[in-house]
Amino acid sequence: MHSLTLVPRFYETDAFGHINNTVVAGWFETGRATVFEMFADPDDPKTMPLILARIEVDFVAQIYYGTDVEIRTWIDSLGNSSFHVCQEAWQNGACVARGRAVQVYFDHATQRSAPLPPDKRAKLESLTVKH
Amino acid sequence: MHSLTLVPRFYETDAFGHINNTVVAGWFETGRATVFEMFADPDDPKTMPLILARIEVDFVAQIYYGTDVEIRTWIDSLGNSSFHVCQEAWQNGACVARGRAVQVYFDHATQRSAPLPPDKRAKLESLTVKH
Amino acid sequence: MHSLTLVPRFYETDAFGHINNTVVAGWFETGRATVFEMFADPDDPKTMPLILARIEVDFVAQIYYGTDVEIRTWIDSLGNSSFHVCQEAWQNGACVARGRAVQVYFDHATQRSAPLPPDKRAKLESLTVKH
Amino acid sequence: MHSLTLVPRFYETDAFGHINNTVVAGWFETGRATVFEMFADPDDPKTMPLILARIEVDFVAQIYYGTDVEIRTWIDSLGNSSFHVCQEAWQNGACVARGRAVQVYFDHATQRSAPLPPDKRAKLESLTVKH
Repeated sequence: MHSLTLVPRFYETDAFGHINNTVVAGWFETGRATVFEMFADPDDPKTMPLILARIEVDFVAQIYYGTDVEIRTWIDSLGNSSFHVCQEAWQNGACVARGRAVQVYFDHATQRSAPLPPDKRAKLESLTVKH
Repeated sequence: MHSLTLVPRFYETDAFGHINNTVVAGWFETGRATVFEMFADPDDPKTMPLILARIEVDFVAQIYYGTDVEIRTWIDSLGNSSFHVCQEAWQNGACVARGRAVQVYFDHATQRSAPLPPDKRAKLESLTVKH
Repeated sequence: MHSLTLVPRFYETDAFGHINNTVVAGWFETGRATVFEMFADPDDPKTMPLILARIEVDFVAQIYYGTDVEIRTWIDSLGNSSFHVCQEAWQNGACVARGRAVQVYFDHATQRSAPLPPDKRAKLESLTVKH
Repeated sequence: MHSLTLVPRFYETDAFGHINNTVVAGWFETGRATVFEMFADPDDPKTMPLILARIEVDFVAQIYYGTDVEIRTWIDSLGNSSFHVCQEAWQNGACVARGRAVQVYFDHATQRSAPLPPDKRAKLESLTVKH
């Protein structure tokens, strides 16, 4: 499991007084950077052979400004050419949101999905332990 | 079905050269405003008796800067105390993203979900026709 | 003067209950698209020979969710290799924010500022009338 | 001087391949949290007696994804009822953006600016040393 600590930003709140729900999609993308780094050079992101096919977010509890949030990220459902990135946001000792992202390994040359190469698969496997 | 036309903003692009995936979560929230207006005064959003429990987004195709996007919104799975908001983003004649939001009718006094009142249910039913 | 109408988005509000100040910087960038279109193809934004050197925003009044905002954009201080983009945001018949962006014409080959070509200058001049 | 380290987020890039300019306005707001904390409880931000009157940002150099950014924040021009928050963004040992925010002490009861109370002024003075 990968852990990232974020400080909620004031502009991420909304008129309900809490962190806006749509912000969590961005936080989870930020947590997935640990996966992106396995596949591409951050200086040349266009070469990254990954496509995001789907995201799901379950909003479990209000998220507040003024307290750090931990984004936990791990790999699940590691298939032939795709895998799931599971994520949780924690604040004040409680899980406040859960997410899942379906990533597909993609060959830009053929414009099709492709089998995950063994070295990439090994890196992903190292992140499949939740705790 | 409710239709909203958005002009993609340059800051919504990312280094891949397209609209960033996380932006779509915000666009779909914007499309759901037609539902929020059924439940609360926009001048006093804190009174809105709706909670967003879950979102799902399927990314179907790249979304480009420079061309309008239509957000289509309709109601599905209208239950006793919850309902689904289905959404699609269309650009250049093709569906580029699909979304689903699970909304729960919520009584702030009891801090629990509650049955949808008949007048709200009638409003939601008027939005259940997709086309 | 160029006019663009925006619908404030709920996620653009903050815990003060109004539109967050930092959002206005993004709205003004969106209004400047009319200038960007004079200089580059929106499908290939990397070729745009413009650099943003500075922005200023004066926050005049609260901006509310639930009411359209008009972004007015015009050109001022048209110099040899730079110009100012002046902007105002209007809501409910009042100016709620004023902005200024300093844009520099830039030659990516030499990595230096360069004189504005006559055809670009003519396009900019057509936008120097405020009303 | 207050120092905050931020990790640039992928969705903060744009189609030019760098961090979008408008993002810096949000980062600087985040850096000003150290000032907001002097004036209000983060749990009740609506009570904060500060109004943002103006922001200025000078874009000095490209800001890249993949490398931390330090936001430096200090106080300047400490007046009777207003003050300036000066800010710089640093990346890879270079200043990449400079900002200034004009903050006004505001009495919500009278809806007017008001003199800074001595205790607030003392807190601000502690942040006037740049280095």
